[in-house]
Amino acid sequence: ALYKGMDNWEEVVGRIRGLHTDTLRKLAGKCEDRFMAGQKDHLRFGTDSWSDFRLTTGKPCCEAGDAVYYTASYAKDPLVNYAIKICRSKVKETQQQFFHSLAVRQSLALHFNIQQDCGHFLADVPARLLPWEEEEEDDDEDEEEEEGEGKKEPSEKGPKVPMPPTAPTTRKKKELQAEPGHEGQPEGPAGHMGAAGKLRSRVVVITREVPFQTVADFVREGVGRHSRNPDLYERQVCLLLLQLCSGLEHMKPYHVTHCDLRLENLLLVHCQPGNPWNLDVLEPNNNASTTSAACPARLIISNFSQAKQKTQLVDPEVLKDQSRLAPEIVTATQYKKCDEFQTGILIYEMLHQPNPFEETPELKEKEYTCADLPPLPARSLYSQGLQQLASLLLNANPSERIQISEARACLQCLLWGPREDLFQALSASPGPGHREATLQNWLDLKRTLMMIKFAERSLDTGCGVSLEDWLCCQYLAFSTTDTLSRVIGILQHPQVQQQHPQVQQL
Amino acid sequence: ALYKGMDNWEEVVGRIRGLHTDTLRKLAGKCEDRFMAGQKDHLRFGTDSWSDFRLTTGKPCCEAGDAVYYTASYAKDPLVNYAIKICRSKVKETQQQFFHSLAVRQSLALHFNIQQDCGHFLADVPARLLPWEEEEEDDDEDEEEEEGEGKKEPSEKGPKVPMPPTAPTTRKKKELQAEPGHEGQPEGPAGHMGAAGKLRSRVVVITREVPFQTVADFVREGVGRHSRNPDLYERQVCLLLLQLCSGLEHMKPYHVTHCDLRLENLLLVHCQPGNPWNLDVLEPNNNASTTSAACPARLIISNFSQAKQKTQLVDPEVLKDQSRLAPEIVTATQYKKCDEFQTGILIYEMLHQPNPFEETPELKEKEYTCADLPPLPARSLYSQGLQQLASLLLNANPSERIQISEARACLQCLLWGPREDLFQALSASPGPGHREATLQNWLDLKRTLMMIKFAERSLDTGCGVSLEDWLCCQYLAFSTTDTLSRVIGILQHPQVQQQHPQVQQL
Repeated sequence: ALYKGMDNWEEVVGRIRGLHTDTLRKLAGKCEDRFMAGQKDHLRFGTDSWSDFRLTTGKPCCEAGDAVYYTASYAKDPLVNYAIKICRSKVKETQQQFFHSLAVRQSLALHFNIQQDCGHFLADVPARLLPWEEEEEDDDEDEEEEEGEGKKEPSEKGPKVPMPPTAPTTRKKKELQAEPGHEGQPEGPAGHMGAAGKLRSRVVVITREVPFQTVADFVREGVGRHSRNPDLYERQVCLLLLQLCSGLEHMKPYHVTHCDLRLENLLLVHCQPGNPWNLDVLEPNNNASTTSAACPARLIISNFSQAKQKTQLVDPEVLKDQSRLAPEIVTATQYKKCDEFQTGILIYEMLHQPNPFEETPELKEKEYTCADLPPLPARSLYSQGLQQLASLLLNANPSERIQISEARACLQCLLWGPREDLFQALSASPGPGHREATLQNWLDLKRTLMMIKFAERSLDTGCGVSLEDWLCCQYLAFSTTDTLSRVIGILQHPQVQQQHPQVQQL
Repeated sequence: ALYKGMDNWEEVVGRIRGLHTDTLRKLAGKCEDRFMAGQKDHLRFGTDSWSDFRLTTGKPCCEAGDAVYYTASYAKDPLVNYAIKICRSKVKETQQQFFHSLAVRQSLALHFNIQQDCGHFLADVPARLLPWEEEEEDDDEDEEEEEGEGKKEPSEKGPKVPMPPTAPTTRKKKELQAEPGHEGQPEGPAGHMGAAGKLRSRVVVITREVPFQTVADFVREGVGRHSRNPDLYERQVCLLLLQLCSGLEHMKPYHVTHCDLRLENLLLVHCQPGNPWNLDVLEPNNNASTTSAACPARLIISNFSQAKQKTQLVDPEVLKDQSRLAPEIVTATQYKKCDEFQTGILIYEMLHQPNPFEETPELKEKEYTCADLPPLPARSLYSQGLQQLASLLLNANPSERIQISEARACLQCLLWGPREDLFQALSASPGPGHREATLQNWLDLKRTLMMIKFAERSLDTGCGVSLEDWLCCQYLAFSTTDTLSRVIGILQHPQVQQQHPQVQQL
């Protein structure tokens, strides 16, 4: 049947279009299977498997807002790395928050950009793995601490995080092992902690994804790169924001709002262990003929301790940090569009600008418009679009605020969508039929280029399909002329009043 | 520039067509680089590297017409396997033939389907590696043989090949080593042959490609498969013949004719060591949506001892086996179309039919037509096309005989070309313009499907691009409506008089 009607050109072109679309959808699915291969195994580690975990290094691999992460191996599967997440808070408060966030997270289906819990315990953790607590202790001698049978460990320098002291609580007699020979490990070679050093009871979580930094680290380290190569840096910001929006969009049908989206709660995980993370790749454009791999890493949303589900009522305790909350939260009306608002703030922060509401707290007091928001400097191809998106996300009126799914579509359009020249062709278009045909032609061509990219990947040595390939494939596979048209409308809508210098977008 | 003229559908379709064609050409080149990676290194092993070679097993990996092959490793590159080719003939005659074939082969550029010589020597070979000579010796006691200092080795059973006795010749003091512990190796663990066992001086050649059998073995082992699964078996025959024709076509500009194309001079080499050679794959059709890998192996043309170059005059010595020679050879007119003729005989033999000129030697005496040739049984989708091709290749008049390049094109068309239904559409076509458009549409669709196949290969686990993918890619990348049209003309031409039962070709 595929070869019927070979003499009809339009039919053949239509069939080629259909094949491209179907194949890209299939490839997007195959990519998901590949990128989420480990995650779909549904691992559950109980307290009994705790003793089979062993740290691969004595230093944290990532220090996040709510926890510190260590790389670990599991005796029964030694080739796979796991992360051990040790929650920062003392047990009592952690427990409360943790079981709340656990309940929220367990209501969600698996997603590539949402942290997965492969098991959690209350465990005895050696004090040297909690370096931020050393200083606290020195400052705050009235904190009670249980100690092991051995001698007192010398105080170690490490990252410090302020943490209110609480009383220690009950613990199970499980111990954390670490491989012998590591720094700061004065005990015997087996690394058992029962015989020496302080032990502290902490909530510990096992995850498959080993973070190597938070987005806060990425932004902090990115100051120089942002100046040297603004196109690449801001493209990477778009790729991270896109992943954030995908994760948040996934939560919507479950009526879950994170409510604490900040740079240090967003983790970065290396996506393909084979590929070194080259931040200084110099290919910022979206031309499919270059095999640019701008995507810095996989983004994972973590720390659901402040998350809300629709049925929950407002708890005044969680309203502490008002500078990060949307106005409708302050007036305790609804949480529904809170994550959208915080995503808008993150755009400012990721572009090395302060949170506008921290800078000017009085903004929230008045009925501000997007013209009241500070402008983002136009540094790259993406600045103008990100400015427009931030304005739409920070709309004071939650019902006028853009939805996270639309924000995701805007980011896809900024990354891989039609550019200025096509917009101009569209606005000069004689009618809606012609406009649609132009968009369909654009989509056909982009899909061809994407297909070619995948085809060429089959003969790449080693490299293979990148995370950006997958993300772009999702966009092209599921776009239609209608969705393209709507997103172009959102991004072209003259919402921002102040004029930025025009950036050439091709 | 790529996105200019997005509102013009015909222009976009033309651009997509151009992208597909260009990409397939690029991919065909990348495939060549991958499949010929080792071969392009231009290795030259001299006599001095001989002692660094070590057999990986005591048994031959392949027994060909002119030589026996052993798998060996090279001390300075132990991860790569080499083949050691030990020529069957005694040194004097071998030398003569060998330096002739060497001169012919050295005039040829590298090709995927032509055996490459990475070095050759006159070397002392232990008698146990020449098992076919044991029997000879027993039968023929007057043959002189030098012996090592050690005791006489017990006679071993092995494949026997008749070989006329000749006197031993001078030899260099190089010895073949074999790894310790192999069967039939009574010497010390180091495996040195100088101290024990007979040594015989033989021409030895090092090649990168390790054959695992000859096409003669393939055909012999294929009798059962030909009955059980004729579509698959005859498709594999087409794939082997296509490779043979590619190699022969490559020789044409160098005016080289092999003149001794027989099943035992064609070697098979595993193409991707990772892929087990699954002969019973059950996907004989050419639908691009199935990822069939029918291609049994890489074919390598070997034994150039009878090869002719244009300038050479006829040597009556080489005219011994007249049943395999085209009539124009018998009358000593020209060699130009000799390989075409022998390829025609090979089609019969690969399909388990006798050589028609061996069966009926008087055929050559008369001006036979293709109607005089015995019919090939119509067993598969390919039988009719192979019959037509054999008839064209066995044309008694060399100037009417089809060229090897056309034979190659016919095989490509049989394997991946348009089928019966398109032929019918073409013959019902209102005019040449419409006919060309139909062929172009078919080509566009096939190229799309090929691109999709490569794209999907990028996400296959392990497997990757197969030899058949490459061969098909070459066809689609370099076909035009003109070449398609010409080949269809050749295959449709009513050359064969006798009617075979009509085989449904879709």
